[in-house]
Amino acid sequence: MKISSVVVKAPSSTANLGPGFDVFGLAIDAFYDEIKICRKNDSGVKMINVNKVLINKRNTATITIRCMKKEFGINDGVSIYLKKGVPIGFGMGSSAASAAAAAIGFNKLFKLNLDSNSLIKFAGLGEKASSGTIHYDNVAASILGGFVIVKNNPLNVFTVTPPQNLRLCLAIPEIKIADQKTKLARNVMPSKIKLKDSIYNLSNATQMVYGFMNNNIKTIGESMNDRIIEESRKKLIPGFLKVKTSAIKAGAFGASISGAGPTIIAVADKSSELKKICYAMKKSFNEENVKCNTIICKPSKGALK
Amino acid sequence: MKISSVVVKAPSSTANLGPGFDVFGLAIDAFYDEIKICRKNDSGVKMINVNKVLINKRNTATITIRCMKKEFGINDGVSIYLKKGVPIGFGMGSSAASAAAAAIGFNKLFKLNLDSNSLIKFAGLGEKASSGTIHYDNVAASILGGFVIVKNNPLNVFTVTPPQNLRLCLAIPEIKIADQKTKLARNVMPSKIKLKDSIYNLSNATQMVYGFMNNNIKTIGESMNDRIIEESRKKLIPGFLKVKTSAIKAGAFGASISGAGPTIIAVADKSSELKKICYAMKKSFNEENVKCNTIICKPSKGALK
Repeated sequence: MKISSVVVKAPSSTANLGPGFDVFGLAIDAFYDEIKICRKNDSGVKMINVNKVLINKRNTATITIRCMKKEFGINDGVSIYLKKGVPIGFGMGSSAASAAAAAIGFNKLFKLNLDSNSLIKFAGLGEKASSGTIHYDNVAASILGGFVIVKNNPLNVFTVTPPQNLRLCLAIPEIKIADQKTKLARNVMPSKIKLKDSIYNLSNATQMVYGFMNNNIKTIGESMNDRIIEESRKKLIPGFLKVKTSAIKAGAFGASISGAGPTIIAVADKSSELKKICYAMKKSFNEENVKCNTIICKPSKGALK
Repeated sequence: MKISSVVVKAPSSTANLGPGFDVFGLAIDAFYDEIKICRKNDSGVKMINVNKVLINKRNTATITIRCMKKEFGINDGVSIYLKKGVPIGFGMGSSAASAAAAAIGFNKLFKLNLDSNSLIKFAGLGEKASSGTIHYDNVAASILGGFVIVKNNPLNVFTVTPPQNLRLCLAIPEIKIADQKTKLARNVMPSKIKLKDSIYNLSNATQMVYGFMNNNIKTIGESMNDRIIEESRKKLIPGFLKVKTSAIKAGAFGASISGAGPTIIAVADKSSELKKICYAMKKSFNEENVKCNTIICKPSKGALK
């Protein structure tokens, strides 16, 4: 029997976590995109922007579904009702969440029985339209949930269930977001880096995996050290270093830019003074004349779960 | 009561394991250095080369002990009886094993009660004399055993017990070893690398940690991919790519240069055709007119255990 419609909720996510550029992703329960996909009579793909959030015409959900339609020769059209929950352009995997929900929803609606790697690949094609390059960190986290380690060519994703007491403090600055911000944030990065900086990041990233797998939040936070990305991207975020330092001073185990930014994410424990950490980050942004919202959140299950 | 002498055995080790340059080490039971340290009446440090293996005058064990004597203001002299078991200059942590055994032995003899990080630091000072730069991957593995992840500044080492069925096939080519080979192997490396190669190595290294912590030998082997070190060092090992490829073709899950080389190490399972892998590696070296010994070994406990 044909299914006439499906509803999928996909979580926000944070990528990189400091040293793990293009490799690490973590699904977080701060925000969710919800997508309802319904069959319709013609063969088109129609996007209905339920809550009238400003979204690009070539939305990642639409692109993902067009790719899947083409790949599997599906002529049936669909209407996509997108309830956008993840703020766009703040480095919390907004485009990934839409793409993830779309891939999973379309797979269900047409009973394609795709494995998770295939879903991640199609969602990645949607993501590509947003960032200019394929990267699977956010979509993998949004689809699978928890902490993910991504390897490309061939795509392979390993997932780790994060410590139950892990908490994240997000400082979301009200900075005017440039068009194609992710592309811009990628363009500021060098194509060559120092070998010793690469070793520094690798040792921190490998210890972060150790921390996640040993349920050691302190180790996770203390591994959020990066000498490659922050250096290039901090200029796009007024007060970055100040905000990061203040979070750690207030009790966070570590802090870094969430994905392409400008959100800053701090790692803490359930028993940490989470409000104090948020306040410290907000205050530091305010001192740079930047308004800022803060959120305390925790890891999320994925849209597939 | 004064202890008059101690005996310590430290295992050989393999560093890098492909992507983890200067970060990963694995103690292996292929060879051991054994050191006996005895108090003597004057304040000097005397090295007795028990099995007359050719060693440098400024041996890592001697240097390590001189550093410890100085640091702790110990005037008592010692005789070091070194039974050298780890072949020198083949990339199996020979200088590290001597340094590791010396640091642990001296610590016991003079009841210094040093923690493992301090022992690793002193052994690292001995290592420095051999390679020109401080790196703790081999000494940490030789001291602590198993798989180690090393972070510098401040030094912090995380250890993982490797899968019980992990087996390593070593192909040890009879290549004339240059003086200060490790220094040379470091000098051929670039000071700058491509960002995308760094991401490639980092994703493989993080998945290797996942493999070790999940007891997944296949994942460990399949993560032995490196785009930074092999590229520079393979020219120092005739037939490297051929040997690596033949190991994998014969059933190994992955292979790479052991430390600074020229030994090549392949990762396999207890149930793999280990002799076949060894034979394939040996044959490939022979085809390049290089004689080669092979050894099947497994992870080792550390000298501290």
